[in-house]
Amino acid sequence: MNEKKTNKLKILNDPIYGFILIPNALIFDLIQHSYFQRLRRISQMGLSHLVYPGAHHTRFHHALGCMHLMQKAVRILKFKGVEISDEEANALYIAILLHDIGHGPFSHALEQSIATGIHHEAISLKFMEALNEEFKGELSLAITIFKGEYHRKFLYQLIASQLDMDRLDYLKRDSFYTGVSEGNINSERLITMLNVANDYLVVEEKGIYSVEKFIVARRLMYWQVYLHKTGLGAEKLLEKVLVRAKELVLKGTKLPVSKAFEYFLTNQINEENFTDKTLKMFSKLDDYDVLGSIKEWISNDDFILSTLSESLINRKLPKVELQNEPYSKDEVLAIKEEVKKRFKLNNSEVNYLVYNGKISNQAYDSTQNTIKLLFKNGEVKDVIKASDHLNIQALSKPVYKYYMCYPKK
Amino acid sequence: MNEKKTNKLKILNDPIYGFILIPNALIFDLIQHSYFQRLRRISQMGLSHLVYPGAHHTRFHHALGCMHLMQKAVRILKFKGVEISDEEANALYIAILLHDIGHGPFSHALEQSIATGIHHEAISLKFMEALNEEFKGELSLAITIFKGEYHRKFLYQLIASQLDMDRLDYLKRDSFYTGVSEGNINSERLITMLNVANDYLVVEEKGIYSVEKFIVARRLMYWQVYLHKTGLGAEKLLEKVLVRAKELVLKGTKLPVSKAFEYFLTNQINEENFTDKTLKMFSKLDDYDVLGSIKEWISNDDFILSTLSESLINRKLPKVELQNEPYSKDEVLAIKEEVKKRFKLNNSEVNYLVYNGKISNQAYDSTQNTIKLLFKNGEVKDVIKASDHLNIQALSKPVYKYYMCYPKK
Amino acid sequence: MNEKKTNKLKILNDPIYGFILIPNALIFDLIQHSYFQRLRRISQMGLSHLVYPGAHHTRFHHALGCMHLMQKAVRILKFKGVEISDEEANALYIAILLHDIGHGPFSHALEQSIATGIHHEAISLKFMEALNEEFKGELSLAITIFKGEYHRKFLYQLIASQLDMDRLDYLKRDSFYTGVSEGNINSERLITMLNVANDYLVVEEKGIYSVEKFIVARRLMYWQVYLHKTGLGAEKLLEKVLVRAKELVLKGTKLPVSKAFEYFLTNQINEENFTDKTLKMFSKLDDYDVLGSIKEWISNDDFILSTLSESLINRKLPKVELQNEPYSKDEVLAIKEEVKKRFKLNNSEVNYLVYNGKISNQAYDSTQNTIKLLFKNGEVKDVIKASDHLNIQALSKPVYKYYMCYPKK
Amino acid sequence: MNEKKTNKLKILNDPIYGFILIPNALIFDLIQHSYFQRLRRISQMGLSHLVYPGAHHTRFHHALGCMHLMQKAVRILKFKGVEISDEEANALYIAILLHDIGHGPFSHALEQSIATGIHHEAISLKFMEALNEEFKGELSLAITIFKGEYHRKFLYQLIASQLDMDRLDYLKRDSFYTGVSEGNINSERLITMLNVANDYLVVEEKGIYSVEKFIVARRLMYWQVYLHKTGLGAEKLLEKVLVRAKELVLKGTKLPVSKAFEYFLTNQINEENFTDKTLKMFSKLDDYDVLGSIKEWISNDDFILSTLSESLINRKLPKVELQNEPYSKDEVLAIKEEVKKRFKLNNSEVNYLVYNGKISNQAYDSTQNTIKLLFKNGEVKDVIKASDHLNIQALSKPVYKYYMCYPKK
Repeated sequence: MNEKKTNKLKILNDPIYGFILIPNALIFDLIQHSYFQRLRRISQMGLSHLVYPGAHHTRFHHALGCMHLMQKAVRILKFKGVEISDEEANALYIAILLHDIGHGPFSHALEQSIATGIHHEAISLKFMEALNEEFKGELSLAITIFKGEYHRKFLYQLIASQLDMDRLDYLKRDSFYTGVSEGNINSERLITMLNVANDYLVVEEKGIYSVEKFIVARRLMYWQVYLHKTGLGAEKLLEKVLVRAKELVLKGTKLPVSKAFEYFLTNQINEENFTDKTLKMFSKLDDYDVLGSIKEWISNDDFILSTLSESLINRKLPKVELQNEPYSKDEVLAIKEEVKKRFKLNNSEVNYLVYNGKISNQAYDSTQNTIKLLFKNGEVKDVIKASDHLNIQALSKPVYKYYMCYPKK
Repeated sequence: MNEKKTNKLKILNDPIYGFILIPNALIFDLIQHSYFQRLRRISQMGLSHLVYPGAHHTRFHHALGCMHLMQKAVRILKFKGVEISDEEANALYIAILLHDIGHGPFSHALEQSIATGIHHEAISLKFMEALNEEFKGELSLAITIFKGEYHRKFLYQLIASQLDMDRLDYLKRDSFYTGVSEGNINSERLITMLNVANDYLVVEEKGIYSVEKFIVARRLMYWQVYLHKTGLGAEKLLEKVLVRAKELVLKGTKLPVSKAFEYFLTNQINEENFTDKTLKMFSKLDDYDVLGSIKEWISNDDFILSTLSESLINRKLPKVELQNEPYSKDEVLAIKEEVKKRFKLNNSEVNYLVYNGKISNQAYDSTQNTIKLLFKNGEVKDVIKASDHLNIQALSKPVYKYYMCYPKK
Repeated sequence: MNEKKTNKLKILNDPIYGFILIPNALIFDLIQHSYFQRLRRISQMGLSHLVYPGAHHTRFHHALGCMHLMQKAVRILKFKGVEISDEEANALYIAILLHDIGHGPFSHALEQSIATGIHHEAISLKFMEALNEEFKGELSLAITIFKGEYHRKFLYQLIASQLDMDRLDYLKRDSFYTGVSEGNINSERLITMLNVANDYLVVEEKGIYSVEKFIVARRLMYWQVYLHKTGLGAEKLLEKVLVRAKELVLKGTKLPVSKAFEYFLTNQINEENFTDKTLKMFSKLDDYDVLGSIKEWISNDDFILSTLSESLINRKLPKVELQNEPYSKDEVLAIKEEVKKRFKLNNSEVNYLVYNGKISNQAYDSTQNTIKLLFKNGEVKDVIKASDHLNIQALSKPVYKYYMCYPKK
Repeated sequence: MNEKKTNKLKILNDPIYGFILIPNALIFDLIQHSYFQRLRRISQMGLSHLVYPGAHHTRFHHALGCMHLMQKAVRILKFKGVEISDEEANALYIAILLHDIGHGPFSHALEQSIATGIHHEAISLKFMEALNEEFKGELSLAITIFKGEYHRKFLYQLIASQLDMDRLDYLKRDSFYTGVSEGNINSERLITMLNVANDYLVVEEKGIYSVEKFIVARRLMYWQVYLHKTGLGAEKLLEKVLVRAKELVLKGTKLPVSKAFEYFLTNQINEENFTDKTLKMFSKLDDYDVLGSIKEWISNDDFILSTLSESLINRKLPKVELQNEPYSKDEVLAIKEEVKKRFKLNNSEVNYLVYNGKISNQAYDSTQNTIKLLFKNGEVKDVIKASDHLNIQALSKPVYKYYMCYPKK
């Protein structure tokens, strides 16, 4: 290796894994790119830090963590005799590093509110393609794998499946930073149990309890953290702020915003009209544009916008109720009427302060891309069939809950 | 406090909790007593260290850990307004500290082999009563609570129930020392969620996921650790050694053993004939008597005894098979015939080398002393009824497995 | 306690301590106040996350951590017989909770650049006084202690000394989030060793090695983390951006900024002219104002401002050199000449791209507020005199290093 | 790899490192050998568990940990371009795995009392040679490296130097199991910093603070743990028991002991008369022989032996004083006189109950095999010269303390 390249073999400190190695100069250069550096300004868990004050980790850190786990997985699989070429390994590192690069501010807020026309994964792909051009084709194999078009399917499964490196990192990381230690999963052990059978990523037989535990931990993290009712209320509130802002802007109101943010407030973006310029604009948009603007909107003339903004910034969050049955029309109406009266709002305005909906979680999907176990005799079985004891089938049933948000009295 | 008493307010280092405080001079004196010091020489997990090399922690350490958690529980409950007098608190500390003092060598080996007539809990009570005499009645309330005879039932539940301090410590401790981190439970969080409703120890509503996780972790620890097939094989082997030794001794063979061990090899002990002398002898018996003797037996003339002893000491463990269905008589017979021939044994001798049986685990008992949740509206519900999602009912079904052990070829 | 107050006895998850308890309703209300909520948007370690990607924790979290440790300290001291009234304890919690509330964006950037006229501690006091008015005098005792005017001096030392709860939290927390585990200190053990002798906070004799280790860890954290040369370069760069912006604004250039930020760019603030309005403005200023603005400045017409801004946002950080001797005038001049030529800058402009200075660290100050040890015989000795082995004296010598920053080629 | 060999690629759980891999079948077979299995019954820290109840880990576990770290070191060095052949790597694993196989019961008790004629390292070598014969020369290179006779010196330094894998494991492991978290070292980071310059194992420049911290942690562990005065008292007591027993046996008294133990009580062993038979006997001797016997000796007729034995088993430890100056003859005499009178002992007997001596610790040896730093410019400097700040020189001065033990009143 030449001097220049050696300088790029960096070792980063990581509170979770101890150290993360940057395996080669190309990966180093991708990390240095402003597209990737932007992820330093995208919170991994949106507004969850309003409930779990430690949860300020970023997409940047998560992406590095995924890459670290991928290095482990490649080492273990090769140790077990699975052939993975250096080129394939490198493509895996790139693909997992960039798999979430298309996330917007606060990870999910945008695509749930003012940019509903395109999914973050589609944007990730656009970033990868732009980078591939800049790096003269060095990302081609990574893109092929990422799109699920490579002939060796297990490589794709390391990137996107029910046991991919993404999940193995984010569950561990989110559990770590929130301090919800029951959600902690043993990523290292799960990876140690991985193998490949018939081009399918499998877990060795004795890993069955670890898999079960992983699924239960995932369920716990969803209900206790990701869908925590206070956090959910904050998330929905953020979406309402964004929708209101876009409504005002489209009506011609001038709001203090950054240029990149303005672009997404004034344009309806979808997969078709997502041009190079859109990508450029998107690459400049992060949590700071959004939260910085909302802070300014507190003093805006629009009552709805300023109320919602102040509510979010100073953590005067809405009352959130959660129940197993849908709210009846009458219940919703009664609350809306009360709030309309209290704040002197019209029928359209009240929808910004009172809103309800459905959330769901499925700890394990038993219908596709299931987790399979490899037995000592070479047999491969679906984990549901292998588990006599705990009804993983039960965990694979989607659970729905219904929320209702409205201003506290 | 006088000088002497202040000196007994010790702080011990603990790898798990950081520090353990000895809350008063009486507790200090109990810990110093040779009856309790014996627990330093009783392995908490029997022979599990043959599978998990870190698992060398002792009953002594576990008992201290339980007492530490009990202090936490008392603090939390009082913080929530539950009245617990200083005398009651102290009785709780004593009762949990001594609850396992009746364990013999390797925790369970004795009562499964040569001292089947009495359960370790009955022996714990005998120790407590002897100590109560020595300490002039200062353990009376602790004994009343331990026997379940105190009028405030929740105090007993802190000592013996499906969420007692015993379980909260041993699951955490065993997970820690084995390195099976999936079995780790968040004892602190569970304690933080405790409350009392109608004199019943309950968990606050929001703790439901922690309880589910606790039950799943318990199940995992049983199958992956406590009933790990290699560890099970070692445990059964130890029992066989003890039974053979007792058989030989009763036949008049002179074996090198300690005096305390000899007592239990020559006498058939049960609850009725368990005298003060028996207690004295028991108080001198620990892992060192048993393992020390087995080491000497390697060179014994009795083929069975020496073979089993050598197998245990040098970790040439039997082959262990585990399956969901009972072994048929024919299967068992076939193996015995082969082993008889291989080692030239008679029908009675072969039973020391070939043995099978049933193990079971019930992660949660839904029929008695169930875990109850306290809802914000004051309602108390059984955790099974409160959990819509995960079938805790499923976890409460006992699971049986069948093992078969025989010498490797 | 009434219902309302009970609802405010919250328990927060913390990745470091497990749980943090909010001890009473007043503390809860202070935490809920927008002045305190602002700390959620102030990074504890400035731009250190550019070197240590996990370091995104906030002043908010640190303040809660300090309060948690203070609860521990109060409990331990009372256990040892030191009298602390409930009122004093509560004042300690308030004082430590609010001790850093006067920090501006990125913790130190402002007071090192555009608001050099007032120290963050003076602003903390202004916040406390404003809150005291709002809370009808309930903070009076906390303020008295915070100002060092209370007659029991050890209470002040818990808040501000070489072993105060501030240091015990931030060293532990920063070590945790950066992943620099060598900097980890055992705060719990140090607190366990605390005592009071003659109204002075002391450490018990056997804690001497823990104290030495604490000082060494502190030194390590300074050189390896707080003064890490890349982080230092980023920090200085941020200051340069702010100074340039203020220069432009004062010259009449219109820059895109938030209202609060504008206030501090257009006014020269010092302790004398710091009015209620200034406090209001300050209470709205956080990392989002500053970083959000800098992002916009990338496309500014001013070459210096846009260059510096782009350099910061996209992590194209300056080259930083560090040495033990000051840079000579000639060396500095040579670099400036090269950079002037390279970027076509005048003499004044080049100072924004080339800058040098001195940093220093003193792991332990042996001249004032020294750490004292309490011996079993009641004697109190300065830790330096008690330590025969490690030259703490050596550690108390300030160490200076000299840095030089300039654009990479 | 054939089936049989693949079965030996085991993965063990480890509470510290997560997992330990057994890299090949030869290593597996060595671990399975009864010589190595014996280490399961040798406590790593002697009697330290009497002070730190968690410290029950064994030489077996430590040896595995060293081998794990060696795998890390080999991987890192190869990553940095240092050539290490597979044969050399394997020899390193074997050598570090077996480096302590010669330890007797309680690690150090024997060689300090009844087998003073030979050092445990010499016995380790004898074991290796015996195993080499059994394994047909497969350990030859390992032995050459272990003896320091291999031409590449840095390989030896990985096994025996001031930064060898032995220290990196035992400091971490002992800190972990005792719960003395201040002694924790970042082995992983130190290994990550290793490199080789001129066939000398060096640490990269930026690792200087980690090295300093490592030395300070080592010093702390010595004074706080290894030389903790209560633990020291227990250790010395154990030696006294052994010496007394040997004295009695040599006089013709019959003591209950195991055969292996008897051999060492009746023979004076030194390097010259250490035959194959001695090795066989030694290979059967462990903690269980010694502690098991001492338990029996409690009821022995010899007052000294029974008193000492009871004192050890029931943790009625001697009073231990520690000071910086030697005890004067008069002081010692006075104590002996008092004890003689108290217990009616003669001049020779009293030496079993009253004893004093000197302990020393040198955190860093600056005179030989010093730790060297590799600078970016290729220069190699001794760590003492490179460290401007902390006087490592001071840490390299041996510290002496003087102890005095006698029975408590």
